[in-house]
Amino acid sequence: MTYPRLTPLAESLPSTVPFVGPETQERALSRLFDARLGANESVFGPSPVALAAMQAAAGDAWKYGDPTNHDLREALAAHHGVTPDHVTVGEGIDGLLGVLVRLLVGPGDAVVTSDGAYPTFNFHVAGFGGVLHKVPYRDDAEDLDALISRAAETDAKLIYFANPDNPMGSWAYGAGIEAALDQLPEGCLLCLDEAYVEFAPEDAVPQIAADDPRVIRMRTFSKAYGMAGARVGYALAAPALASAFDKVRNHFGVNRIAQAGALAALGDQRYLRDIVARVAEARAQIAEVATRHGLSALPSATNFVTLDCGRDEVFAKAVLEGLIARGVFVRMPFVAPQSRCIRVTAGKEADIAHFARALPEALDAAKGR
Amino acid sequence: MTYPRLTPLAESLPSTVPFVGPETQERALSRLFDARLGANESVFGPSPVALAAMQAAAGDAWKYGDPTNHDLREALAAHHGVTPDHVTVGEGIDGLLGVLVRLLVGPGDAVVTSDGAYPTFNFHVAGFGGVLHKVPYRDDAEDLDALISRAAETDAKLIYFANPDNPMGSWAYGAGIEAALDQLPEGCLLCLDEAYVEFAPEDAVPQIAADDPRVIRMRTFSKAYGMAGARVGYALAAPALASAFDKVRNHFGVNRIAQAGALAALGDQRYLRDIVARVAEARAQIAEVATRHGLSALPSATNFVTLDCGRDEVFAKAVLEGLIARGVFVRMPFVAPQSRCIRVTAGKEADIAHFARALPEALDAAKGR
Repeated sequence: MTYPRLTPLAESLPSTVPFVGPETQERALSRLFDARLGANESVFGPSPVALAAMQAAAGDAWKYGDPTNHDLREALAAHHGVTPDHVTVGEGIDGLLGVLVRLLVGPGDAVVTSDGAYPTFNFHVAGFGGVLHKVPYRDDAEDLDALISRAAETDAKLIYFANPDNPMGSWAYGAGIEAALDQLPEGCLLCLDEAYVEFAPEDAVPQIAADDPRVIRMRTFSKAYGMAGARVGYALAAPALASAFDKVRNHFGVNRIAQAGALAALGDQRYLRDIVARVAEARAQIAEVATRHGLSALPSATNFVTLDCGRDEVFAKAVLEGLIARGVFVRMPFVAPQSRCIRVTAGKEADIAHFARALPEALDAAKGR
Repeated sequence: MTYPRLTPLAESLPSTVPFVGPETQERALSRLFDARLGANESVFGPSPVALAAMQAAAGDAWKYGDPTNHDLREALAAHHGVTPDHVTVGEGIDGLLGVLVRLLVGPGDAVVTSDGAYPTFNFHVAGFGGVLHKVPYRDDAEDLDALISRAAETDAKLIYFANPDNPMGSWAYGAGIEAALDQLPEGCLLCLDEAYVEFAPEDAVPQIAADDPRVIRMRTFSKAYGMAGARVGYALAAPALASAFDKVRNHFGVNRIAQAGALAALGDQRYLRDIVARVAEARAQIAEVATRHGLSALPSATNFVTLDCGRDEVFAKAVLEGLIARGVFVRMPFVAPQSRCIRVTAGKEADIAHFARALPEALDAAKGR
C-alpha cells in the first residue's frame, strides 16, 4: 500500500496553486519588483489607526484570538445595520469561500460561475468534488441572467457572482441583482462576492434583506481597507447560514492582530473614503497612460484597471511578460475572449511612473515578436 | 426547499465549538480574568525579536503573505535538517489537522485517537465524515500500542498521538515511538502532534527519517514560541504528503505579519531556551501551591500542569468553576477517569499568585457543596 493513502477525491486533485505570488516571481527573476500592481492589493496601506492597532496588538500575540470574533462581528453588524448573528468572520474571502463550498457542495453537486471568474472559487469547488458549469462573460461583464438560467438547467446549489467583477472591473446595478433574485431556482444560493464593493458607485450595491436566505455576501479587509496580508474577510447571510459556518470552520483561525486591525480599520471610514478617492485618481492616471500608448482602459468600479491590449491572448501575454521583465508586477487572469487584456492595480504616483516607463517598451517588444 | 441547502454531512453536524474562548467567559462573567492560565498560551510572550519583526511587518500588511511561505519553510528546513519540500506551513496545528483529515479521511473512514485527547482533531474527523475509534488512556498517558492495535482492527487510515500529551502533560520515550512505527498497519499514517515538544526532555523526541512516509509531525509557534494569536504551525512529512497539502489548503491563508514573526522567533533559540527554563520553574511553583493544598501535580513535559483533585469529576468541575469565578482562567478538558483533574498553564509570578490565592477558596467552596 502506498503512502499517502489519500481519499479518491484528494488523489484526483492536482497540487494546484490558484495564483503564483509575486515573491515567487521575484525569486525566479532574481530581482524585486519596482511596482507591485498585480494582486489588487492597496498600495496605500491600511489606515494609520489600523496600523497602530496592529502594532499594539502584536504584544498580545501570545493569546489566541477570540474564536467568536465577537468585537469585530458586533462592529460589522452595527456598520451594516444587521445583528452579529448575520455575520461570520474568516481568513479572507478565500477562506470563507472554502467553508461555504464545503457546507453546500458534495461530490457531483452542480455549481455555476462565469468562465474567467475567480479561480480560487473554482479551486474550492474542485476540492470538494463539485461539478463546475461555466457561463461566458457578456460584453466583458458577468451575465447574471445566464448564470441563473444555467443554474436552473443543472440544479445548481450555488452560483458565484462578483459585483464589481474581478478581473474585468465591470459592475452590475443593484436593482438588477435584486430583480434577478426572484428568478433564482428554488434552493439555489447566490454567493455575491463584493470584495471591491467599497470602490463601486452606490447604485451598484443591491438592497437585500438581512434575513434573505437566497444570498450570501462576501466582504473583505484585503482591498479598500488595505489589509490583504492580515487575512480577514466576512460574510453577511441569514443567521441559519452564517451559524452553519461554525459547524466546520477553524474556530481559532483568525489572527488576533488582524482582528484588532480590522476593528480599527472599520472605525476609520474617513480614511476609507480618502482611499476610494485616491484609487479613482490612480485609475484615471493608468487609463491615461494606457490610452496614450494605444490601449483602451475598460470602465472599472474596483481598485484596478483592465486594459484591452487590442489583439489576441498571445499579444497580451507578451505585453504582460514585458512589464514583468521590466519590474512591474501585473497579472493576466483572463480566459478568451477577455484574454486580450491585462490587469493593472491602482498605485501611487511612483508605481504609475514605473508602469508608464515600462509599458511602451513592453509594447514595442511585444509587437516586435 | 429550505435554505441553506447543506450537504447531508454538513446538515448532520452540530454548530459545535471545540473550545469556548476566555473572552466569551469574561463577557459572561462581566469581568476580566486576573490570570489567563487556561489555554496553554505562553504568558511570557514571543521573543522581543519576533515582536519587533511583527511590528515592522504590520506596515506591509497591505501585501498578501507569500503563499508558499518560502522564507519560513527554508528556515524551518535548515532548523530541522530537512529540505523545504518536507515542510508545509498552515494556520496553526488546528488548520493543518483540518487539511490532513480532509486529505485522508472520507465518509466512513476509520480514525483512531485517545479518549480525552485533542477535541479539535475529533471535530475535524467528524467534519469530514470519518468514524472515530477511541482508546482509553493508560496510567494517565496515551497508549500508543493500544492505538496501533485498534488501528489494525478498524483498518484506520490515521492515528492521532500527541507527545507530549495534552491534556495530561505526560510523554512517551522517543525510542518507544520509533519501535512502534514498525507495528503500524500498512497504509496507516501516524499523526504525531508535537505542539509541546520544545518543553520535553530530549529522549522524548523520536528520531524519524525525514522521508519516512508513515509519520507526519505537527509543530507550532503557538506554545513555546509564544505566538498563539499569530496562527502559524507547520508539519514535517515526506515530500509526497507535504506537497499534497497544496491540493486543498488556503494558499494565501497565513498572515504576513505572522510569517515574519515566526521567522524571527525561530532565529532566537536563546530566548526559546530561556522560556523553557522559566516554564519549568513555573510548573514547580504551580505544583508546590497545589501540593500545599492537598492536590497532586502530575509530571509534565509541557507548559502546563495537570492537577489531580483527588475526587470525582463533579468535584474537579466545582474546583474549576471556583477558580474561574475568582478570576483565574483554567480548563478541565478531560474525560473520565482523567476528569478528576484540572489543567493549569505555566504563568508569571503574578499569575501564580492569583492562582495561589484562589485555589484554597475554590477548594473550600467545592468541598462545602
